[in-house]
Amino acid sequence: MDNAEGLEGETMWGIHLDRQSELPLRRQIYQALGDQMISGKLKGGELLPSTRELSKGLNVSRSTVSDAYEMLIAEGFIISSQGAPTRITEGLCVEKMTDPAYLAASHIERVFSSDFRTGLPDLRQFPRFLWQQLITKASEEMTPEHYGYTGAQGIPELRKEIALWLYRSRGLSVDAGDIFITQGATHALHLIAELICGARQEILMEDPCHTGMLRTFLNKGVSVVPIPADEHGIQTEWLKDKKGSAIYVTPSHQFPLGAILPASRRAALIRFAHDNEAYIIEDDYDSEFRYCGEPIAPLYSMDSHRVIYVGTFSKSVYPALRIGYVILPGQLQERWLHLRTYTDVQSPIAEQMALMMFLRTRKLDRHIKRMRRLYGERRGILLKALTETYEGEWHAFGDEAGLHLAVEFPEFHFDDAFRKSGQEKGINLTPVEYHCIEKGRHQSKLLLGYGHLEPEEIRNGIALLCSHIKEYFGSEITMAKEELE
Amino acid sequence: MDNAEGLEGETMWGIHLDRQSELPLRRQIYQALGDQMISGKLKGGELLPSTRELSKGLNVSRSTVSDAYEMLIAEGFIISSQGAPTRITEGLCVEKMTDPAYLAASHIERVFSSDFRTGLPDLRQFPRFLWQQLITKASEEMTPEHYGYTGAQGIPELRKEIALWLYRSRGLSVDAGDIFITQGATHALHLIAELICGARQEILMEDPCHTGMLRTFLNKGVSVVPIPADEHGIQTEWLKDKKGSAIYVTPSHQFPLGAILPASRRAALIRFAHDNEAYIIEDDYDSEFRYCGEPIAPLYSMDSHRVIYVGTFSKSVYPALRIGYVILPGQLQERWLHLRTYTDVQSPIAEQMALMMFLRTRKLDRHIKRMRRLYGERRGILLKALTETYEGEWHAFGDEAGLHLAVEFPEFHFDDAFRKSGQEKGINLTPVEYHCIEKGRHQSKLLLGYGHLEPEEIRNGIALLCSHIKEYFGSEITMAKEELE
Repeated sequence: MDNAEGLEGETMWGIHLDRQSELPLRRQIYQALGDQMISGKLKGGELLPSTRELSKGLNVSRSTVSDAYEMLIAEGFIISSQGAPTRITEGLCVEKMTDPAYLAASHIERVFSSDFRTGLPDLRQFPRFLWQQLITKASEEMTPEHYGYTGAQGIPELRKEIALWLYRSRGLSVDAGDIFITQGATHALHLIAELICGARQEILMEDPCHTGMLRTFLNKGVSVVPIPADEHGIQTEWLKDKKGSAIYVTPSHQFPLGAILPASRRAALIRFAHDNEAYIIEDDYDSEFRYCGEPIAPLYSMDSHRVIYVGTFSKSVYPALRIGYVILPGQLQERWLHLRTYTDVQSPIAEQMALMMFLRTRKLDRHIKRMRRLYGERRGILLKALTETYEGEWHAFGDEAGLHLAVEFPEFHFDDAFRKSGQEKGINLTPVEYHCIEKGRHQSKLLLGYGHLEPEEIRNGIALLCSHIKEYFGSEITMAKEELE
Repeated sequence: MDNAEGLEGETMWGIHLDRQSELPLRRQIYQALGDQMISGKLKGGELLPSTRELSKGLNVSRSTVSDAYEMLIAEGFIISSQGAPTRITEGLCVEKMTDPAYLAASHIERVFSSDFRTGLPDLRQFPRFLWQQLITKASEEMTPEHYGYTGAQGIPELRKEIALWLYRSRGLSVDAGDIFITQGATHALHLIAELICGARQEILMEDPCHTGMLRTFLNKGVSVVPIPADEHGIQTEWLKDKKGSAIYVTPSHQFPLGAILPASRRAALIRFAHDNEAYIIEDDYDSEFRYCGEPIAPLYSMDSHRVIYVGTFSKSVYPALRIGYVILPGQLQERWLHLRTYTDVQSPIAEQMALMMFLRTRKLDRHIKRMRRLYGERRGILLKALTETYEGEWHAFGDEAGLHLAVEFPEFHFDDAFRKSGQEKGINLTPVEYHCIEKGRHQSKLLLGYGHLEPEEIRNGIALLCSHIKEYFGSEITMAKEELE
């Protein structure tokens, strides 16, 4: 009987209470009534039942109902003046629209049996246990101040360690005060674009260049002027009578062709920057991984006034770390801090502290040394596999560095159709054309990322690739023949 | 003798070796020679000494010199063809400019004896030890995949926990697929501005509003139209015949005046958004901290199609966490992912994992509950101190919520001169005018942030403030008198 009354009562005034729900009963009442006022089921001016009435009807305590009423009063859904009954406010009705949640299918990652994607370090090799200890130690060293706003430039302890590391690994002497922490290289370029190229301004970019970096600039509404790059890097002779507020280059290891920019072209770049009061954006994206000899000295060391140096730890530590840095000329620093403050305020603290310790304990140096050897071996295995498996003509491009190899197959043209057909067979690779602003100059080249692949994966991948090339172009040729007949 | 020769030899060819340096000798040689070529001390075409000669002269091993030469060759500083002597490349000379590093003084934080700044939680109360354990546990749970690119939307585990938390704390039911992790609220607004208002477009903002949020929009080149807010929040009657792609509001707790937006004005906002196909940007910046009753239901619950909800954990967890989120209408989601990918790729992983556990273990709920009580007490202490200490007329503004109080002193006008004079006395406070787009409507109001202050700090601060007001305006009055005489 009690129960029956309870159940019946529970749907009084369109309120159905769910006593299993995590949501407090007072909130359920508040929402049920509020929703009906917005949907128009309950009209402005209507009277609500007294708290006693409703609590009895809903079989809940009276205070539960008064709590609900107080929230409705606080938000102006209902009015209740001394003694007078509770009344619904006018003008609440809104026809509610709802929209089914969806997630773009294009963002669901595909898995490939042979994934030659570029720019992915081997995360299985990352010293995770050591990193856990550093993260823990870092969080132990954090003072209450570290949890507050620690500044748009990044914590000084980390900037100091980066400066020391740049000196011992690249011989680059830079003041920690000129280093500005970012959320990685892309974030750095996003801010640099805001900093030095207002909309409708021009930026020069070496071509081919990383398509992600290109989009970062295009999204900012700047117009991009491509400057061709050959097997030695950007062709500075094309800079003649060009204008622009900045020029984007990867001089230590041209992406994607892998050249080390010769000193004479470096000098030409610097002279161009001076004559045009332009900035050089030097993206040093993976110069740690050079397999013969030492990392290349950055352009920045030739001119700290005109060069903006961009570095990242996404490849040397791990991508989800989201820490990179820029070295900025003094005249840009104050504006940078303003922009960063009103863009995303600052970088989070835990990773900054952990990375600082990774550097301070020289564990990063050791990790890079180890990975350099490993990546070097894998590059060798890739080249060996190609030599042994592929019959036709091919040759590799660029310096012995990085996580990917650019290979030319002079007989063929690789387009997006080829890429897709490969993906259907489970081979993921990138034609150089994909990274070209002006298409048509690098059609015979492919990019093969090997850094994240085990020797077996590399060998199988190359076997798969070779048979695919044969099949794909073989069928094309026969098709062409048939058409002629 | 040996030594003497060594010392003398060490400055051969303008190379001075420092054997104490961390920098390898080969790199010192490489740099010393490279620098002289760039500076023009060594001219193009000149011959370099043989490796044997130089190694003998510098008193180092021959392989050290060959290593240095190899680097110079790799970078194109010098040319050495079979047998022929090593020659310096042409066209390397660049007059080098250097620029003294500087750090803008404006970014050095001042310390105040009474710091009433707004929006700072009490970091001394943050459960740091617990957080350390969570960070450790989180890093233990991380798989190699977590170290890679984990997606521009934020990890699903975290988004699921946020959805559950929004439901149990606000009664807001939202699909985890509609939640997008950001680097805090400022970052969210930065991206929203890119997303929905192209340059030369208009955005409506309630006035007063947080000056930081205003600058974030202005930096994106959109023009801002202020809509006045009164003690109940944004005055929707001013929206008549206004246009705009979006309208920015803080309906749960208007910043800085503290109003809860009445339901009828909420309904008017929604209708405006429908009629003008505009978006409502709902900034729910500190709705957790309501001292009487429950958090207010967000506008988003009235219309998930036109409202973009912005939330942050900077105040409920800690500012240096840099994690916030937006709830996006479906039609904006794909474009958002594109923008985020080419802005800063994604949020770092460690904090996402730790926050996910902070939510999963309900420790955040407990922390918020505790802080809500604490902040409520401090608000009481602040009001009591004002009542007891200040003789003149004053009254407090807004709902009992948040980390700061808006107080009106009808007798006075507070301007930047008053603010500065206070800072010289060690009192840091903010006139509401500071956050006004259209000046002159809130001159008699001050903002007093109390969340981060101990009871004693609050009492002393109020004592200091009252005597300062008296002195400041007292002297003003006498000066005025003197001028009249």
